Amino acid sequence: MYGTVANLDAVTRACAEFAEDPAEFGSLWRSKQLEYTFLLSLMDDYVDFWEATLMALEFAIDAAGEKFTKGQKDLLMNSWLRPEAYEDAYEGLQKLKRHFPLAILSNGSPKMLREGLKFAALDGFFDKILSVEKVRVFKPSPKVYELAPTELKVSKEKILFVSSNSFDVVGARKYGFHTCWIRRTEQVLDPLGEVPDHIVSSFEELASLTFEDLMR
Amino acid sequence: MYGTVANLDAVTRACAEFAEDPAEFGSLWRSKQLEYTFLLSLMDDYVDFWEATLMALEFAIDAAGEKFTKGQKDLLMNSWLRPEAYEDAYEGLQKLKRHFPLAILSNGSPKMLREGLKFAALDGFFDKILSVEKVRVFKPSPKVYELAPTELKVSKEKILFVSSNSFDVVGARKYGFHTCWIRRTEQVLDPLGEVPDHIVSSFEELASLTFEDLMR
Repeated sequence: MYGTVANLDAVTRACAEFAEDPAEFGSLWRSKQLEYTFLLSLMDDYVDFWEATLMALEFAIDAAGEKFTKGQKDLLMNSWLRPEAYEDAYEGLQKLKRHFPLAILSNGSPKMLREGLKFAALDGFFDKILSVEKVRVFKPSPKVYELAPTELKVSKEKILFVSSNSFDVVGARKYGFHTCWIRRTEQVLDPLGEVPDHIVSSFEELASLTFEDLMR
Repeated sequence: MYGTVANLDAVTRACAEFAEDPAEFGSLWRSKQLEYTFLLSLMDDYVDFWEATLMALEFAIDAAGEKFTKGQKDLLMNSWLRPEAYEDAYEGLQKLKRHFPLAILSNGSPKMLREGLKFAALDGFFDKILSVEKVRVFKPSPKVYELAPTELKVSKEKILFVSSNSFDVVGARKYGFHTCWIRRTEQVLDPLGEVPDHIVSSFEELASLTFEDLMR
């Protein structure tokens, strides 16, 4: 979902409106949000993605020495409910949908995903929306990836897992999916011992590949 | 160990020698090193801390667009074998040692810990050196903290866990230790639902507290 089919421009804009150094503030917020999903999972603890995002916001505010009002914090948090579809995702998913059932597998809470997909006008594309909420642990735990074969009733060897997040592709590959890394920018792959089966720069490039290409 | 009783000035100096933007390079390396320990643990995978540090170095080199020689990489890696005792740790541990058995519980591999403690002239202070190597998962997994009561043969309620790393103190507190956060700089606590029992600015301040203060 986030960063793969939909961008977080609304979050970036909200940071630009309130933070003294928006780029640094936004990047700290996002990196702490992910770090907290890792840490909580490792500690056998769980709060939903909304709550983890709020914890990360509190940290970023304190670390940056910002003094936001309750209203500003609400606006920052609510920007997470306004993801916008990447243009290439919108186009590519239309083509992919003709040939494959599609599903979302995301750290997001069910409410965030429901509202976000609707806002991004992507809700019609997916046959199933799977949230980590069901297993109460975050990516890249294999318990999360296991949700897909279980809930979709398809063996994992028949699933192509697509993400822009390097760690997510690595985790999915380790679990046993075919994987495709959507690399829109000059990102470096985390060298964690697994390499994606496919690397493309957009969903349109992905949609131009054949089933045989993708699943070999 | 790292960042708590011994500093990483040797790593900082090695980065300063070779990297174009040493501060950014060093901070990326360190943050990726920790991130990889979290990610690998969550993926039920394990490489030792040396290997995770090397993976993080490879990422940082690629992300920063650096071209280091094999020799430069070796020098960067070997700087991790040259931790230096914080002065307050050296002083404080001397006092603490008179009253309590002391142990190290670290992400570091046994070799890194052995060499590092010797280099820092801290090897005489500790009755036991515990590495996560034994459970093949990194902090803040409860399996790591469990090593202490098991190996030291002391119940967890009788252990005071001391760290400068906020996430480590939080994980240790969640596991059930008494905890003390050594906060030498203006760090912000990760708001992950646990607060350290004690916050001090140095080991000397810690050593000035009584047993009753510490364990209540």
